[in-house]
Amino acid sequence: MRAALMYGAGDVRVEQVPDPTIQAPTDAIVRVVRACVCGSDLHPYHQMPASEQGTPMGHEMVGVVEETGSGVSRLRKGNFVIAPFAISDGTCQYCREGLQTSCEHGGFFSTCQAELVRVPHADGTLVSAPVAEDSELLPSLLTLSDVFLTGHHAAVRGQVAPGSTVTVIGDGAVGLSSVLASRRLGAERIILMGRHTARTDLGREWGATDVVAERGDEGIAKVADLTGGAGTHVVLEAVGHRPAYDMALGVARAGGTISRVGVPQYEDAPVGMSTLFGKNITLTGGPAPVRAYIEELLPEVLDGRLEPGRVFDRTVTLDQTPEGYRAMADREALKVMVRP
Amino acid sequence: MRAALMYGAGDVRVEQVPDPTIQAPTDAIVRVVRACVCGSDLHPYHQMPASEQGTPMGHEMVGVVEETGSGVSRLRKGNFVIAPFAISDGTCQYCREGLQTSCEHGGFFSTCQAELVRVPHADGTLVSAPVAEDSELLPSLLTLSDVFLTGHHAAVRGQVAPGSTVTVIGDGAVGLSSVLASRRLGAERIILMGRHTARTDLGREWGATDVVAERGDEGIAKVADLTGGAGTHVVLEAVGHRPAYDMALGVARAGGTISRVGVPQYEDAPVGMSTLFGKNITLTGGPAPVRAYIEELLPEVLDGRLEPGRVFDRTVTLDQTPEGYRAMADREALKVMVRP
Repeated sequence: MRAALMYGAGDVRVEQVPDPTIQAPTDAIVRVVRACVCGSDLHPYHQMPASEQGTPMGHEMVGVVEETGSGVSRLRKGNFVIAPFAISDGTCQYCREGLQTSCEHGGFFSTCQAELVRVPHADGTLVSAPVAEDSELLPSLLTLSDVFLTGHHAAVRGQVAPGSTVTVIGDGAVGLSSVLASRRLGAERIILMGRHTARTDLGREWGATDVVAERGDEGIAKVADLTGGAGTHVVLEAVGHRPAYDMALGVARAGGTISRVGVPQYEDAPVGMSTLFGKNITLTGGPAPVRAYIEELLPEVLDGRLEPGRVFDRTVTLDQTPEGYRAMADREALKVMVRP
Repeated sequence: MRAALMYGAGDVRVEQVPDPTIQAPTDAIVRVVRACVCGSDLHPYHQMPASEQGTPMGHEMVGVVEETGSGVSRLRKGNFVIAPFAISDGTCQYCREGLQTSCEHGGFFSTCQAELVRVPHADGTLVSAPVAEDSELLPSLLTLSDVFLTGHHAAVRGQVAPGSTVTVIGDGAVGLSSVLASRRLGAERIILMGRHTARTDLGREWGATDVVAERGDEGIAKVADLTGGAGTHVVLEAVGHRPAYDMALGVARAGGTISRVGVPQYEDAPVGMSTLFGKNITLTGGPAPVRAYIEELLPEVLDGRLEPGRVFDRTVTLDQTPEGYRAMADREALKVMVRP
């Protein structure tokens, strides 16, 4: 089959590799119908040291089951499935609590920008959906693999509820998804911090009541202006760089919550008396256990109430995947869908 | 009047100072019946640079109203009152939300180890209690000024509920109070990390099901042993030093919550992928808005169901306050009450 491999920063190639095969009775092989490029794929795209060995890429996909191991009972050949970015057995203590990203037998996909994918613990991991593989709903279904439900996780962990005031930091696909998820959960006011008008326009359509283009101290001052000096009860941080964390500290109201879903590109950060502690601010978030949310949100996607797939503004073939990375890295595209 | 002043590390003196007077119509003057020394008072006792000017000390007290300003309506001369360690007007947006430590017109007491205290915003700050000033309940009532309700805040922010598994880090008065508060909220298992047997014995009496004397990596390994390798859903950090934060990271279960009430003696700490983020661990806590909790807990103290005053194991006169500091700093005493 053909698959995308990264050989270093800015160096993505599509090559012939061996087809995956069933390795355990609980495995399934899925033919990829749509995959995509994630904002988090851009971190290695900017930083990965050059190597002679390519690294398979991609952790988001929807597809059709081609083959199942002897221990798979919930799925059969031909099922259309959504693959959460985390593998989960569906039975361990963490899965039962809805924290499938910490599954005792789990792991993360990293080979989805390809024609075929081996899915371990297929019964636990995959969710089937009653759609054809040429459905118009494919983009929105694909967002249930990661991006929209990562925004949803941010909002859930931030305890967004009817009447909440929310600041969303970042106008990438996860930031915009956080806006949509906050609106869905009843937020009354949503301040979107971002400076790419095409993106913030979609944010406004999805429920942002205010847009702040400024960053750093200027951005913090602007949010203070908009909130009578206090900041907002909820801050959803969808970037992952330290300046975004510092901005979150600046716009969080005393007693409020900062919920992070941007993968932190730092380890240490201020948490002491003058930042989190003194103001009783809660810091929460992490990798989204999207598997825990799919069943709840799927009906709203199927009946068209939710259209999170609007974050995709470009589609490429699998062979064009390198161009997809470039377009996202150069901010020409918000989020790129890959059609093998 | 006489008051305790700190002139530098290890140097507390009791001296004659001017009586406080009403300065605003919302002030009251309270005669101190009992004050005490806080674990957080030991930070300056260990570190304060020497100075020719003494710093008044103490932020916990119960007493009797001696005089009220013309704007005070809820209190009158002779009322027995509990003073939360934070001043609060009772009317601003934060006070209405129960976050009186962030009151827009607030501040913190720092003159309670004395005979008289001026209380700003007396109507908002003070809570009266129907007891005589020689009541046997004085020690427990005094803990509603800070220490017990700080432990309660830790447990509330940690969302301790029936069935919770909890680790409490620290066997000081706040740690023990956190044990008592967790038990009261229904925690099923409470692991107390502390190595002073006299203290952990009180912790066991108050609900600790396990005591771990080891610290650092050894302590973390011990808690892992006790919890099937997973750690506990809730960790209450009642120390404030970085090693205690690191230990909290080590014993927190994926998806769990670290609630801090020990005043952090550090600003930066790890919060990234390998610590908080990757495991979806929530970090919460801060200075306890004890004013928000007093009305709820007071009846249980008045009828004897709760005896948080058992943390006091030594009583000194005001003139003996320097000896009280020394005894706490040397860990001879768990918590010292001051009787002016």
